[in-house]
Amino acid sequence: MVPHLVTALTGPINELEQRVLDSMPAIERWFRLEWMEHTPPFYSSVDVRNAGFKLAPVDTNLFPGGWNNLTPEMLPLAVQAAMAAIEKICPEARNLLLIPENHSGNTFYLSSVAQLRRIFHMAGLNVRIGSIDPAIKKTTTVELPNGESVTLEPVIRGKRRLGVKDFDPCTILLNNDLRAGVPGILEDIHEQYLLPPLHAGRSTRRMSKHFKCYEEVAKRLGKLLGVDPWLINPLFEKCGEAKLAEGVGMECLSTNVDALLTKIRRKYKEYGIKEKPFVVVKADNGTHGMGIVTVRDAKDLEALSLKVQSKMSGTRDGQPACDILIQEGVLTKERMHDAVAEPVVYMMDRYVVGGFYRIHADRGVDENLDAPGSSFVPLAFEQSARLPQPGIKPGASAPNRFYMYGVVGRLAMLAASYELEATDPNAEVYE
Amino acid sequence: MVPHLVTALTGPINELEQRVLDSMPAIERWFRLEWMEHTPPFYSSVDVRNAGFKLAPVDTNLFPGGWNNLTPEMLPLAVQAAMAAIEKICPEARNLLLIPENHSGNTFYLSSVAQLRRIFHMAGLNVRIGSIDPAIKKTTTVELPNGESVTLEPVIRGKRRLGVKDFDPCTILLNNDLRAGVPGILEDIHEQYLLPPLHAGRSTRRMSKHFKCYEEVAKRLGKLLGVDPWLINPLFEKCGEAKLAEGVGMECLSTNVDALLTKIRRKYKEYGIKEKPFVVVKADNGTHGMGIVTVRDAKDLEALSLKVQSKMSGTRDGQPACDILIQEGVLTKERMHDAVAEPVVYMMDRYVVGGFYRIHADRGVDENLDAPGSSFVPLAFEQSARLPQPGIKPGASAPNRFYMYGVVGRLAMLAASYELEATDPNAEVYE
Repeated sequence: MVPHLVTALTGPINELEQRVLDSMPAIERWFRLEWMEHTPPFYSSVDVRNAGFKLAPVDTNLFPGGWNNLTPEMLPLAVQAAMAAIEKICPEARNLLLIPENHSGNTFYLSSVAQLRRIFHMAGLNVRIGSIDPAIKKTTTVELPNGESVTLEPVIRGKRRLGVKDFDPCTILLNNDLRAGVPGILEDIHEQYLLPPLHAGRSTRRMSKHFKCYEEVAKRLGKLLGVDPWLINPLFEKCGEAKLAEGVGMECLSTNVDALLTKIRRKYKEYGIKEKPFVVVKADNGTHGMGIVTVRDAKDLEALSLKVQSKMSGTRDGQPACDILIQEGVLTKERMHDAVAEPVVYMMDRYVVGGFYRIHADRGVDENLDAPGSSFVPLAFEQSARLPQPGIKPGASAPNRFYMYGVVGRLAMLAASYELEATDPNAEVYE
Repeated sequence: MVPHLVTALTGPINELEQRVLDSMPAIERWFRLEWMEHTPPFYSSVDVRNAGFKLAPVDTNLFPGGWNNLTPEMLPLAVQAAMAAIEKICPEARNLLLIPENHSGNTFYLSSVAQLRRIFHMAGLNVRIGSIDPAIKKTTTVELPNGESVTLEPVIRGKRRLGVKDFDPCTILLNNDLRAGVPGILEDIHEQYLLPPLHAGRSTRRMSKHFKCYEEVAKRLGKLLGVDPWLINPLFEKCGEAKLAEGVGMECLSTNVDALLTKIRRKYKEYGIKEKPFVVVKADNGTHGMGIVTVRDAKDLEALSLKVQSKMSGTRDGQPACDILIQEGVLTKERMHDAVAEPVVYMMDRYVVGGFYRIHADRGVDENLDAPGSSFVPLAFEQSARLPQPGIKPGASAPNRFYMYGVVGRLAMLAASYELEATDPNAEVYE
């Protein structure tokens, strides 16, 4: 199926597409050189929004689910990339332990786990799935809608190593974003590779740190391309120590929403954009579509206050969020079958391996789509993955558009690499 | 198009397929460990013959043409592998110079060159095509049947570097098998990466050395799989210093053909194979389908002598071949639309990136198919590349069959890696 896209086929985004295509060798070389100095996250997915006049990542997930949304055509690329990733980390590996989220009743999520298992099995590893869910006390097999099944085994913690019964892995791959904090069972594992590292967990990460790193790499790529980095970078502000449930921090929020809206308005004016600027307010430690509020005016905040409070206080398993990220809202101009759509780019090691459109029939162009009710359509990516077609006019070629999405996805992944280096508690500091 | 295959769906080959599938993690780990010690050839293609009872490589090409036979679906895999290859060799590379064969009038071959150019361009390099053909004295553009064109530029040799006008490459990629010897213009290049190395050229390589290395790795893989290595290894003998055009070496040839046929007969008996054994006689320095003679009995040699003489003397641009390889003939049981077919596996760096069937309507099951009149059909590889489907019964799954082909292809590539190390004139010798 080739998705029907409705994208703004004129204006700056086509200029950007053209620049990206023209600079392909320079871009690829730049990434190659970056990866000599920095380690890519093991895997990642990036939500991208295409406003027609700008293109920007809005979330970078270091424990991606949704692998089941990738088409069979994308599987060989994912396997090849997984082989490259494993080879670098633990070439002598025989065994990989995959630790999933604790939603053991969610067969949609478990279909993604089954797909990851397939990818790493095909890359040549014995894969077992070890659950850290306290509810999984014995080996539990869950049947999936497609006839497959997933067997969850309770993890067994030794003094220094983690495994499941009769299975001692070289590498432990987390597909659990640790949003409720790092459980003790995962701490002090020094003999095995634990990936991604614990400080990549949602409870530890700060999205403001990520987007600060992103801003830095976006400026450099912008310079390389000769474009205003704003065209690929969402502006943001931050409020620390807010306790919205108690009303603490509303003033900071109001001031920063106002300041950010003013900045965006100025940019819109510069580019002659007629849309109404907006910002999104979310917990700085990331949420899975929970507690993301769209604000079009600082005055709206007061009215929204109660809603914000109740929503925000629902994040992090009920605890009040402390830091607040106020991010430039990026419209999505993409539509599929009349539903608002945003591309999600999947990467394994340094490679783009696929993607899909997240669509949501009940949401607006300025709303978060990663919410209950969303569905997924494979990108037209399907066959030609991230391969551009030089010589085709901007906006007319799906592969060229997806090449650009892949560049922005990789840029966010690079930012995540910088972020994880900067926040590594075990990093050696050279003074 | 999904090729119609007629393969022997019973007998040892299915046992082999099953063992290969069951041992997938062990096989992949073994390759990973091998690639820690050995460098894969930059790219390669391997002709594989499936006799129903055995599966073996019959030629390993280190300057593969035919990239245009790969389907668009295989392109992303080739690009991803090319990115990995370039990254290892010359991550700071901007420019790649591709040196093609001297058949500048052969648009079929030039379509393959255009495909290679596309792969490396998509991997992020500026690619130019530099000809070492003395006939190319100025920039020459050749139109291809599909509407593309290829521009051949005469190479310019500096004191220490090679390039074309206004283009100084980091890496020079040879797609010219140097069968007529190494031209002076390629010698003494020490500042640039010249790949594959000159001693991989057809005039320098000896196929007997390759198959000696292959025998070694086949024994080790056979042990890993718990199978007789003969099931994946073609036996061979060698006659040195033969000058068939002058009748010198016919006795050696006769003795060795007889000895080899006896060995094969013994193996056939052991496995209850009813086919008539045969051997192929070819120049040890390889040929592109020239001078390959099928011999079913040493007595036939006398009768074939004249034919052999005239054929063999035609190799190496008219010079008489010196060393003769006598190789166990491997039937091909595969058919496509009634034509005899053999799979060809394509690799870039350590990855299988695609393949196709070489078919020849006018040739027999025991004849060489790499000859004028052959044509090409993409492997059913198409979508799922080398990804096996565990749990499907042997012989019933094209992806599983192709995974096995990919294993044998990579085994031959590994042998080429050993071969190039052993024959490297610049190797450091540790005593």
